[in-house]
Amino acid sequence: MGRAFIISVGDELLSGRITDTNATWLSNELRAAGFPVMERQTVGDDREAIAGAIRRGVVDADVIVVSGGLGPTADDLTRHGVAEALGVSCMRHQEAVAQMTALFERAGRELSSTNLEQGDLPEGSTPLHNEWGSAPGIRADLDGALILVLPGVPRELKKMTRARVLPLLEEHPARGEVLVRESVTVVGIPESEAGRILEDLMQRGRDPSVGSYPGVAHLVLVVEGSDGAAVSKDVAEIRDRLGDAVVCVGERALHEVVAGMLIATETTIAVAESLTGGRIADLLVSIPGASSVFKAGFATYADEAKTDVLGVRPETLDAHGAVSEPCAREMAEGARRVAGADVALATTGIAGPTGAVPGKPVGTVFIALASADGTDVRRLRLIGDRMQIRERAAAAALDLLRKRLSRSGFAAG
Amino acid sequence: MGRAFIISVGDELLSGRITDTNATWLSNELRAAGFPVMERQTVGDDREAIAGAIRRGVVDADVIVVSGGLGPTADDLTRHGVAEALGVSCMRHQEAVAQMTALFERAGRELSSTNLEQGDLPEGSTPLHNEWGSAPGIRADLDGALILVLPGVPRELKKMTRARVLPLLEEHPARGEVLVRESVTVVGIPESEAGRILEDLMQRGRDPSVGSYPGVAHLVLVVEGSDGAAVSKDVAEIRDRLGDAVVCVGERALHEVVAGMLIATETTIAVAESLTGGRIADLLVSIPGASSVFKAGFATYADEAKTDVLGVRPETLDAHGAVSEPCAREMAEGARRVAGADVALATTGIAGPTGAVPGKPVGTVFIALASADGTDVRRLRLIGDRMQIRERAAAAALDLLRKRLSRSGFAAG
Repeated sequence: MGRAFIISVGDELLSGRITDTNATWLSNELRAAGFPVMERQTVGDDREAIAGAIRRGVVDADVIVVSGGLGPTADDLTRHGVAEALGVSCMRHQEAVAQMTALFERAGRELSSTNLEQGDLPEGSTPLHNEWGSAPGIRADLDGALILVLPGVPRELKKMTRARVLPLLEEHPARGEVLVRESVTVVGIPESEAGRILEDLMQRGRDPSVGSYPGVAHLVLVVEGSDGAAVSKDVAEIRDRLGDAVVCVGERALHEVVAGMLIATETTIAVAESLTGGRIADLLVSIPGASSVFKAGFATYADEAKTDVLGVRPETLDAHGAVSEPCAREMAEGARRVAGADVALATTGIAGPTGAVPGKPVGTVFIALASADGTDVRRLRLIGDRMQIRERAAAAALDLLRKRLSRSGFAAG
Repeated sequence: MGRAFIISVGDELLSGRITDTNATWLSNELRAAGFPVMERQTVGDDREAIAGAIRRGVVDADVIVVSGGLGPTADDLTRHGVAEALGVSCMRHQEAVAQMTALFERAGRELSSTNLEQGDLPEGSTPLHNEWGSAPGIRADLDGALILVLPGVPRELKKMTRARVLPLLEEHPARGEVLVRESVTVVGIPESEAGRILEDLMQRGRDPSVGSYPGVAHLVLVVEGSDGAAVSKDVAEIRDRLGDAVVCVGERALHEVVAGMLIATETTIAVAESLTGGRIADLLVSIPGASSVFKAGFATYADEAKTDVLGVRPETLDAHGAVSEPCAREMAEGARRVAGADVALATTGIAGPTGAVPGKPVGTVFIALASADGTDVRRLRLIGDRMQIRERAAAAALDLLRKRLSRSGFAAG
């Protein structure tokens, strides 16, 4: 199995001015090409630091990809850092100069002496031709490791990776197996519980590996291994054990899955939202094609909106309050009736930080699903801050609908 | 000058599944706090690799911030990696367990044995209390370096940094010069135009520095320098040049500023949303205290909902279509009337990818603001994908209201 090491160069990374999306992108590409990344290091525009990172990388890595710091200005020191690691000097490289000259000629631009310095490469290295920018890349070898240096401009880095790096990796003797990866999206099971249920599959060092990645209201389980059949077997096992908590195989958002089910079954929907005020509507409407099934959403945050718009009875509010089973029920039924929809979801609850009453602490939420079959209401106790409680309440309501649609025979991906 | 070293832990980083935005954010915070980052290292969920990175960091750094791998599952190995670097074992820490127990009790949840393992800390280290999630942070000392370990969940990492890390750095003897930083949030001016208007202030190498960081529907200008008076002078200059495009000094979201203005002026609001379906309602309701001013939101995506719920006239839809000036006007006026609100916002438009008609390409959006003074309607041509167009439409509507409230004498921060 080949091992890759990524070195990102740039003061603008260390100062926090820009996010290192190059490293993310490269990590994915290298792994898919049979060279999983063992470690990444970010250093400033500093010759010694660059050289040190390379020397460290060659100890264990088969391939070292360095990006950034190849520009024409005084603070671009990557070529000198590479030379230092190799124990050589930089020399004007005639092939690199010829390529740069041709590029500038095509662009009708003059090659300045500053640009020419980009043709100074560590002795013994070779240029990686860059058709997309002025700085040539560099290829060098040190202690059995292949060192590839790329410009930091994301567009040039990507083009260079595809055109210059991946072909070199394809011929590399250390190239490992290309991994098969599959995800399972789960809602309604906390990460710790999933970890308990899947403990044997999630053992470290197992092939395939199973990892869990929690969001605010969902969990993604990633199965990855060298053998496609074994990966599929694990996915089937996970579906089996987690049952209808599995939203889909793949990494799709819950609202996307629910919108897809509504569209596929031509089920029209309305939503009545108190604490989630507009959130569920926003999520559903964000999906292209939702217009065919989304009838109306009511963000009835105020009591009078609940009575005036949805027809919740004032006696219900007087007797039970807005955060109650009967109110959630009447909201869902009212939204369904007013909008003339097949199904309606409703949410009411206390998102905090204030609003708690005796017996109803922050996080108390009622969700309701009204349909021709009647109305189903659930009481939940959600944790988190205002944002998390609202997001989890929206997810719980959508998930109630998902399970209902599943049971009525519609199977998601 | 203090020197910081950041270690990001997680297989999901090395696999390229997620981008390390924590490292960017931390780099900024640490630099502003007088501890510029000298180097960053990203390692997998691997005890030896974590320990190795810490041992490397202590050679030159005053402060080492480790993030990620504190969760309750078997692949969360950071606490063991730290213990290994310290040459000790992990032990159940009573103070950490007490804090976790209290947190779970408040949430009405059972602390599982898996969760309890998050209370295993390296011997001799102390927990950093985490009120925002289940895993305590860790503080340890090694060879004169301060080691601070934080959860990888971005929200928890940020809260923990502000509440636990920065106060420790303030007392740190190696603390370097603290930069004064001030932000200005701007809406409605593209980054390139702001760059033109502020060209002299944004020159490289100038102190204070002025940088621009664009979001989907806003722009944050960051002024940073060693001299507080010079920073304030630049902020005043920016406000002066950009006029009422300045939402606020500081980095507050537009909807937060607008909700604050509504609450302060006791102005009640209703919203009628077609293409933004629920988004504006969601944004406003997300702000604590919004209940006092938010009357109702109507996600009237379907034509019949516009007529049935808001009273948009069928003749208006027949003659002009739903994406039109008269429809936006009637939606806003209808929402204001139905909800009995002081003001109402409406949006209607084509978010794409489909839906374009001759004369109304994707991105055509009408926003309206109805109040006792009459109704103001604007036609916009927004660019971007479906998500961006919806977000920009919501921002444009909120910004129309912000400017109206400003002109009527309410000044935002």
